[in-house]
Amino acid sequence: MQAGKPILYSYFRSSCSWRVRIALALKGIDYETVPINLIKDGGQQLAIIEYLEETRPTPRLLPQDPKKRASVRMISDLIAGGIQPLQNLSVLKQVGEEIQLTWAQNAITSGFNALEQILQSTAGIYCVGDEVTMADLCLVPQVANAERFKVDLTPYPTISSVNKRLLVLEAFQVSHPCRQPDTPTELRA
Amino acid sequence: MQAGKPILYSYFRSSCSWRVRIALALKGIDYETVPINLIKDGGQQLAIIEYLEETRPTPRLLPQDPKKRASVRMISDLIAGGIQPLQNLSVLKQVGEEIQLTWAQNAITSGFNALEQILQSTAGIYCVGDEVTMADLCLVPQVANAERFKVDLTPYPTISSVNKRLLVLEAFQVSHPCRQPDTPTELRA
Repeated sequence: MQAGKPILYSYFRSSCSWRVRIALALKGIDYETVPINLIKDGGQQLAIIEYLEETRPTPRLLPQDPKKRASVRMISDLIAGGIQPLQNLSVLKQVGEEIQLTWAQNAITSGFNALEQILQSTAGIYCVGDEVTMADLCLVPQVANAERFKVDLTPYPTISSVNKRLLVLEAFQVSHPCRQPDTPTELRA
Repeated sequence: MQAGKPILYSYFRSSCSWRVRIALALKGIDYETVPINLIKDGGQQLAIIEYLEETRPTPRLLPQDPKKRASVRMISDLIAGGIQPLQNLSVLKQVGEEIQLTWAQNAITSGFNALEQILQSTAGIYCVGDEVTMADLCLVPQVANAERFKVDLTPYPTISSVNKRLLVLEAFQVSHPCRQPDTPTELRA
């Protein structure tokens, strides 16, 4: 990291890459993208975000207060470990085409039911208070997945409004899947 | 946490509770167990472990070196976010009885293929070097799940031998599912 530009092996649509792109943008770290058309399971990229946080502490993506940090990590783990692994492509392939959509919708709604309740007690402008945190990096890609799988977001007013406030921020705009080097032309915006 | 004994809402068999029990034992934190017969998804309890680490830093469960910390978190996330969510009870119920065992075995073996390769470069006595870390707290419950689902561990010599060295440690003994207040008599040891 110290020597030379970091390289991000990235897939435009992957939630995991997307989270890291937002973190890099927030911290103002210049990097090279090497697009790889490969989707990795799980929330492993949270390890990269924690690494960035420790080596580039400004701006902080984790609050200073241990209880608030725990809230941020709980929300991040709920999304990256509880929702996203159940609706990623390799799992959907395994469950078979007929029930894919229902499966993904179930995974997302049961996760969002828990998430909406948590956010109602933790959210300010963003997921936890009024500063952008790691939880917000996880939220935006997950809401995009919910929209992709046509989940009705009406029961989740806090999720929806936090998401809207995040999407207008510069770091979230430049890292969006519709603006990556490997984004197909028809999905560009 | 500062005032009074912490309470752990725990289910003897849950990997998530188990990880936290090991962390509490390693840090020598006295706590009360309230058994709840409820299985929560995902790796959310990693947030509790990070909170413990920040409020009770000794002994450390994360190495001081940022690159080693990243390895520990990568391994923890691979297990808690990449393997365990796919083979927990609520998911197995959804996939149906006929393919439950195959499904769980596939989730574990594809995860263990990646994990074995990672451990071959990071492991010393334990998952990352020679100190017990958060990665080890995740490994032991996951290997127990592999055994429960009759996964052949022969292709995973590093995973197996690290697991064996961990199981003899006091903190891993007292936190084991076979020794919890809610362990059914027939499963006690």
